[in-house]
Amino acid sequence: MSRTDPELHESVEGAAADIASMEIRGAATIADAAAEALAAQAEDSDADDPDEFRAEMRAAARRLRETRPTAVSLPNSLRYVLRGMDGETVPELRESVVESAREFRRELDQAQENLGRIGANRLRDGDTVMTHCHSTDALSCVEKALEQGKDISAIVKETRPRKQGHITARQLREWDVPVTLVVDNAARRYLDEVDHVLVGADSIAADGSVINKVGTSGLAVNARERGVPIMVAAQTLKLHPDTMTGHTVEIEMRDEREVLTEDEEAEINGDADGEGFAVENPAFDVTPPRYVDAIVTERGQFPPESIVTLMRELFGDQQGGEPWEE
Amino acid sequence: MSRTDPELHESVEGAAADIASMEIRGAATIADAAAEALAAQAEDSDADDPDEFRAEMRAAARRLRETRPTAVSLPNSLRYVLRGMDGETVPELRESVVESAREFRRELDQAQENLGRIGANRLRDGDTVMTHCHSTDALSCVEKALEQGKDISAIVKETRPRKQGHITARQLREWDVPVTLVVDNAARRYLDEVDHVLVGADSIAADGSVINKVGTSGLAVNARERGVPIMVAAQTLKLHPDTMTGHTVEIEMRDEREVLTEDEEAEINGDADGEGFAVENPAFDVTPPRYVDAIVTERGQFPPESIVTLMRELFGDQQGGEPWEE
Amino acid sequence: MSRTDPELHESVEGAAADIASMEIRGAATIADAAAEALAAQAEDSDADDPDEFRAEMRAAARRLRETRPTAVSLPNSLRYVLRGMDGETVPELRESVVESAREFRRELDQAQENLGRIGANRLRDGDTVMTHCHSTDALSCVEKALEQGKDISAIVKETRPRKQGHITARQLREWDVPVTLVVDNAARRYLDEVDHVLVGADSIAADGSVINKVGTSGLAVNARERGVPIMVAAQTLKLHPDTMTGHTVEIEMRDEREVLTEDEEAEINGDADGEGFAVENPAFDVTPPRYVDAIVTERGQFPPESIVTLMRELFGDQQGGEPWEE
Amino acid sequence: MSRTDPELHESVEGAAADIASMEIRGAATIADAAAEALAAQAEDSDADDPDEFRAEMRAAARRLRETRPTAVSLPNSLRYVLRGMDGETVPELRESVVESAREFRRELDQAQENLGRIGANRLRDGDTVMTHCHSTDALSCVEKALEQGKDISAIVKETRPRKQGHITARQLREWDVPVTLVVDNAARRYLDEVDHVLVGADSIAADGSVINKVGTSGLAVNARERGVPIMVAAQTLKLHPDTMTGHTVEIEMRDEREVLTEDEEAEINGDADGEGFAVENPAFDVTPPRYVDAIVTERGQFPPESIVTLMRELFGDQQGGEPWEE
Amino acid sequence: MSRTDPELHESVEGAAADIASMEIRGAATIADAAAEALAAQAEDSDADDPDEFRAEMRAAARRLRETRPTAVSLPNSLRYVLRGMDGETVPELRESVVESAREFRRELDQAQENLGRIGANRLRDGDTVMTHCHSTDALSCVEKALEQGKDISAIVKETRPRKQGHITARQLREWDVPVTLVVDNAARRYLDEVDHVLVGADSIAADGSVINKVGTSGLAVNARERGVPIMVAAQTLKLHPDTMTGHTVEIEMRDEREVLTEDEEAEINGDADGEGFAVENPAFDVTPPRYVDAIVTERGQFPPESIVTLMRELFGDQQGGEPWEE
Amino acid sequence: MSRTDPELHESVEGAAADIASMEIRGAATIADAAAEALAAQAEDSDADDPDEFRAEMRAAARRLRETRPTAVSLPNSLRYVLRGMDGETVPELRESVVESAREFRRELDQAQENLGRIGANRLRDGDTVMTHCHSTDALSCVEKALEQGKDISAIVKETRPRKQGHITARQLREWDVPVTLVVDNAARRYLDEVDHVLVGADSIAADGSVINKVGTSGLAVNARERGVPIMVAAQTLKLHPDTMTGHTVEIEMRDEREVLTEDEEAEINGDADGEGFAVENPAFDVTPPRYVDAIVTERGQFPPESIVTLMRELFGDQQGGEPWEE
Repeated sequence: MSRTDPELHESVEGAAADIASMEIRGAATIADAAAEALAAQAEDSDADDPDEFRAEMRAAARRLRETRPTAVSLPNSLRYVLRGMDGETVPELRESVVESAREFRRELDQAQENLGRIGANRLRDGDTVMTHCHSTDALSCVEKALEQGKDISAIVKETRPRKQGHITARQLREWDVPVTLVVDNAARRYLDEVDHVLVGADSIAADGSVINKVGTSGLAVNARERGVPIMVAAQTLKLHPDTMTGHTVEIEMRDEREVLTEDEEAEINGDADGEGFAVENPAFDVTPPRYVDAIVTERGQFPPESIVTLMRELFGDQQGGEPWEE
Repeated sequence: MSRTDPELHESVEGAAADIASMEIRGAATIADAAAEALAAQAEDSDADDPDEFRAEMRAAARRLRETRPTAVSLPNSLRYVLRGMDGETVPELRESVVESAREFRRELDQAQENLGRIGANRLRDGDTVMTHCHSTDALSCVEKALEQGKDISAIVKETRPRKQGHITARQLREWDVPVTLVVDNAARRYLDEVDHVLVGADSIAADGSVINKVGTSGLAVNARERGVPIMVAAQTLKLHPDTMTGHTVEIEMRDEREVLTEDEEAEINGDADGEGFAVENPAFDVTPPRYVDAIVTERGQFPPESIVTLMRELFGDQQGGEPWEE
Repeated sequence: MSRTDPELHESVEGAAADIASMEIRGAATIADAAAEALAAQAEDSDADDPDEFRAEMRAAARRLRETRPTAVSLPNSLRYVLRGMDGETVPELRESVVESAREFRRELDQAQENLGRIGANRLRDGDTVMTHCHSTDALSCVEKALEQGKDISAIVKETRPRKQGHITARQLREWDVPVTLVVDNAARRYLDEVDHVLVGADSIAADGSVINKVGTSGLAVNARERGVPIMVAAQTLKLHPDTMTGHTVEIEMRDEREVLTEDEEAEINGDADGEGFAVENPAFDVTPPRYVDAIVTERGQFPPESIVTLMRELFGDQQGGEPWEE
Repeated sequence: MSRTDPELHESVEGAAADIASMEIRGAATIADAAAEALAAQAEDSDADDPDEFRAEMRAAARRLRETRPTAVSLPNSLRYVLRGMDGETVPELRESVVESAREFRRELDQAQENLGRIGANRLRDGDTVMTHCHSTDALSCVEKALEQGKDISAIVKETRPRKQGHITARQLREWDVPVTLVVDNAARRYLDEVDHVLVGADSIAADGSVINKVGTSGLAVNARERGVPIMVAAQTLKLHPDTMTGHTVEIEMRDEREVLTEDEEAEINGDADGEGFAVENPAFDVTPPRYVDAIVTERGQFPPESIVTLMRELFGDQQGGEPWEE
Repeated sequence: MSRTDPELHESVEGAAADIASMEIRGAATIADAAAEALAAQAEDSDADDPDEFRAEMRAAARRLRETRPTAVSLPNSLRYVLRGMDGETVPELRESVVESAREFRRELDQAQENLGRIGANRLRDGDTVMTHCHSTDALSCVEKALEQGKDISAIVKETRPRKQGHITARQLREWDVPVTLVVDNAARRYLDEVDHVLVGADSIAADGSVINKVGTSGLAVNARERGVPIMVAAQTLKLHPDTMTGHTVEIEMRDEREVLTEDEEAEINGDADGEGFAVENPAFDVTPPRYVDAIVTERGQFPPESIVTLMRELFGDQQGGEPWEE
Repeated sequence: MSRTDPELHESVEGAAADIASMEIRGAATIADAAAEALAAQAEDSDADDPDEFRAEMRAAARRLRETRPTAVSLPNSLRYVLRGMDGETVPELRESVVESAREFRRELDQAQENLGRIGANRLRDGDTVMTHCHSTDALSCVEKALEQGKDISAIVKETRPRKQGHITARQLREWDVPVTLVVDNAARRYLDEVDHVLVGADSIAADGSVINKVGTSGLAVNARERGVPIMVAAQTLKLHPDTMTGHTVEIEMRDEREVLTEDEEAEINGDADGEGFAVENPAFDVTPPRYVDAIVTERGQFPPESIVTLMRELFGDQQGGEPWEE
């Protein structure tokens, strides 16, 4: 990594800065900006020969990549675009990168809609879904089902600690979907009234595991026990190619104040100094594939055990490392 | 039921009034007061013949019974005392009732301690328990284990909506037990670090089901899936003899404000009138016996499938109705 | 067995003859006749001493027993009555037998009603039950639920080969219960609409197994997989005390013509002689206790794993052999 | 759909008419006729330019497609042939279509034999299979196993309501396979004697579900519980590409007279008017992939969770809609 | 415990010494000797009053008890005999103890035979059993089945580390039972050929768990998965009443040389000093009740979940401590 | 097969001879030698035209293939190289074969290292693995984890009959990994202390089954029941393409003397002639995919249900037979 990096286009530098500063945020927005920046780099490249061009593109990708080392959508965007780089001459290479970025961005733009349409097809008129947390991918399935003229009801888990269920409930109410809000503890009791558990995903691993808001796995195990199918809505941006090489997804531990106020903590600890007392607040958990019936993406639905095939198709098999590595 | 009830002793009337007004409350306190009142009625009875005496006792029991028709411990106390009524003469009957009440109260006084000792025997030095809600019976097992010199740690679920986990955490911290507090959604993620799920019970049914704070059943299903044994601590007062005759336990629906503030609800509903939106807040749920490894009572531990045997032994088999019926 | 049997009362001989010739038939009717005959024998006995009286009663029981060696209700009736035989003198013994027979018959008379009331308590207003075969015990639960003012619907499996589901459907229609009739193959598809699987039993074994119309076990396994509770309605007459000593219940193989007409068989075999082709038509199958949620009897409901306790209570523990053995 | 469709070849019109009138019927026969018609259209096309040619082919495909909107094999045939259409000139395009149709038909012709050979390899000498319904694909596995010199026995479920088990039994008897016929209810009882459950499929969904004759799913759940592997024999024609986009397979409801004669129904309803009584007669049910061990196709065997990969390979990923859409 | 113990009979002292020195060994032999000693103490007692007599008996029991604090059969013998002590006068008390001891010893003498007969009834002609370790109770079931004229075959697991399977195989061969010996690792592969898993027990806990030779639980889990019933043969002597009060059964860790020779260990450790390397050799493991179909005792067969009822019946409910405590 | 085979290169004949005589042995070594031999044949070929060249290569492959008809790695090597044969002229064909062989050998050389790195990523610092048998692929995962600086402990099953666990233990000790050795029977008892079951594979079938040392499947079933993930480490050489066409993997039966010495056998049989006694010693067993969480190969990790996709990618789909067939 000690080589001189080629000069990078200002679009790349700008996008990198904005992603790093979180002015650009959200999985899809980041991915879009990264693809756009690569296209700009390609279009304006002064590279003299194919090798130089390729090096330039790799450098641009590296620059963007390092802004958010744990994001999933960002490297997926870079992988997709660079995998489309093909040709014997600089103009061919340029054209291929620009086209690959365009394709990526076009699909990204359509992805949630397409995903929603596919997911909606799994829902039947009169169905009740149970939701966990807030996922625009999952909600898109409901929205499209409504557009198909289906009546859908929802049982919404509040999703402690941050109660994103309230956001889900609000969105569903805007669409006039009947909503019953319950605490997470009540989920099993209501599963008998539910036709589908419908959740999103933070990311999806090559072994078919679904990483999603903490509580998903417990819900899925109960849904299986109650005979209720579990459907995960996740754009292919959420596929996590690092996991193809065995990497596990690091689970973020969030601020304990989401769980407990200082006053509540003081009351628990009484006069003691708080040693021996801890709050743990993991953001996500891991649902094994055997508790998921289908992963719905914008490219079709898949059993979780075969999502690795799609991952390899879209982002390569990670053999020989990342496309931006020297 | 249209017959003239015999005159009741002031102790009975007093206890009935205090139970009805909830001045006397808590499962064990109510049961104790009821047994005491029956003993007072027996001791001061002027009944001329055995039939009159028995009628008087039945009337006293009915009076007490009707103050809280859905309580479990109250009728169990009455059943126990009246089942001990035996003899051919008024003095014999009186003596038997007084003795039966004394025995009941003595056992009740010892019950939690005995239960705790039995439950503690299931715990090993170094074990970690996961708790749900707040149960003095369950905590008694930990307390006795500590007294036995065992190191015990706890992962405490906060137990939405009322967060009784905080009370549990506080008690455990007073005993210097290391506590990790987690939201209910995080339970499955921490089960791999847990040696026992330890919960109490609101009541226990003849088919071996455990009725307890909502969320218990979902936790138990996950514990089974993770290979963690589930232990329910419940005094025999919690056994629910009505269920021997097939009655199901009515699940109380609590105030929705425990789940959602008015402001939160307003935000969800936006400008809409709230129709189509509901909060459901069940207090309890039902855990089938196949997800419970042992029910620990003050009279020993039992597989949930055989608790009905203990129920019949203590409170009769409900054939021929309740002992206080005419 | 080479001793001279005492002379038997004509009631005993008459009942034995009628049971043998199947003029008396049906589990409850046989049991009632047997108890009545034993009472008659006791009342008219000329026995000079207690031993002679006891020998006479045992002989009467043996006589009745041998008329239908594989029935379950017949020996249960004899066991119950003889277990009640108690006393030091002939009059005491006589009185005890007569009383025991009276008690047995009184309870028998009430049993289905009591069972129905208990089973009905498990059903809730609006519930849908799925039935298999035709069982008056199971139907009694529905009848009592209707009397309790509950709305009950039914999905009725036709129950090949003999289609006793039609009889069930007819009875339910008489009570105005909405009925959907399906073939047995369609059961799993409709389980999601069902709140209880409700079946009777041919007999119940000490290990908690339920022997019932063939197809019950497959249904129960599917109901468990779909999260639907399974409820077996069976009077205690159906308990099979022989199984306490490990005996398995012989499954009757019925006429193949119930399954296949001669024409159908000819068509299958074509010109061949039929060797290599067989029809097997077992009447019953065995459902393990882990697929049954509750056995509802007239003496309360029990988890299947604890029914052996009731069996021992009612009919003894089979230690020292049958009460009628010399 | 308001554009002028190009003129279609008489072969296309003829095939369309015959398919619509069901003169051409059976999944394979329809598929073959459709491919043949597309080839004829291609061979005789007068199209002046590639676009016109392509439009003509799409129109022909649409014409054929609309004759049987719910068939699976018909659109699969069209997809396969049109996916093979490739080239820059009309002659190239023509050649590619003709070749693609020829390939499709050649494979179709061999498919059942190839499938049978693959399935036979899973069977061992001396094995007993249990069959449900009648499937020539499933039977082909047995036939090839017999040709391999293996002894195979069969337990044949009669498969109410239409008793296609009789057809299966007859075929097996012609091959001299020992057959035991049982009612569907008896299946679980005989699973312990069975080495493989062997069934066909009506269609197979992208989430790995198997849609087959009603009763299959209940059998599969029981087979799993009994430790018996479940093998589905299905030509790739049965793969249902619509399900890649989330569509569920509509389950046909068949005539209630298959289940119940008018006389039987009258007897059930007695004097009542039949309101409140219904017969439901679904043709198929859905078996989740976790209850299937292998799907045997003419292109190899697959775990059900990976069949979507084959589906995408053969028929495209349904991105951008059907190949015949304008 | 600081009181002067009454003088004990020489039989008691002798039995105590022989048990302590292991001259008397084996669960049944120890139990028999203890009961005999109590009877001798009772017969020769010079106690002046009932209280003195009772104190003497308790002292005798304590003396015997303390010789082998972890045995199960020894205290069970003492519990049984002392529970039979009843009466108002010394002669009555003496008579009751002598009779209780006689009854206990008579039943003990018959227990294995009775158990064998009951277990044999579960086996059918032609059945194959799989055995683990060596259990005379389990073998008694096979022996009685052979006496009933049934053909029984066996698959015998060698049962590392001590290979007691060889003893089982030898016994079965003496009875001419066809035996296939396999290593423990091969068990699952042969389960499909097995009709019953048949094992003994070291002890049985109140929660229905079976403590038996290490490897039993893994076998039972696999047998359940393969659909093979699991049958535990255990005389009631093996019931472990301490577990009623929650005590867990301490698992003996045996000599590592049973697992590994010194040479083998040296080869593993190479030149290293062996730190970081350990052999663990537990004698037993715990099988949860849900993996056991029936426990066969000399008093009948029981589902494991109801064995606690038998335990309470035979040995009391442990309320108020042990009968020998002051 | 009656045609005259082309003359084969001495490298091919030499390799064939050495493989047949087992001078070349071990899955990877054989595969390497075969690829090298094919490259030599290609380089020195005098073929006049492409057809001749191809025939020569097929003949060389057949020659090599027939030396060890049941090996897995050998035909995989041949398939890989021949699938890379591509071109219109002899030089092109030659070049492609040489390059394909080079690629295969290069990957083979790296495979275990790559696999180890991928597997290591699944392990976390502080994890304990349980091993069965001895697998260099599995050990490579541990080795790489150690290189990543992770602390790993191991519980090593001895793996009767051949106790390859000792070899595993020795290797782990060399790397200073803390090892606890247990008999196979003790595995379930220690699963609660284990984070991963880590095993190799003898071969892997298209239906996702893992064929590995006997005992693997029983361990996997128990690991699933205990909630412990199961990870199989297997280079793609172990994929068994024959299974794509339904072939099952023949399980080798090994010498009974591995299980039982002659003396032990004599002792079991006593004076009898040994008829009726058998030892069965299967080398492997089959673990269904539902008990495996991930298969780790050098090309990434896969759920077992999708390994068929990789198999098809690397070795073709077996349509049209093997590449060496005429």
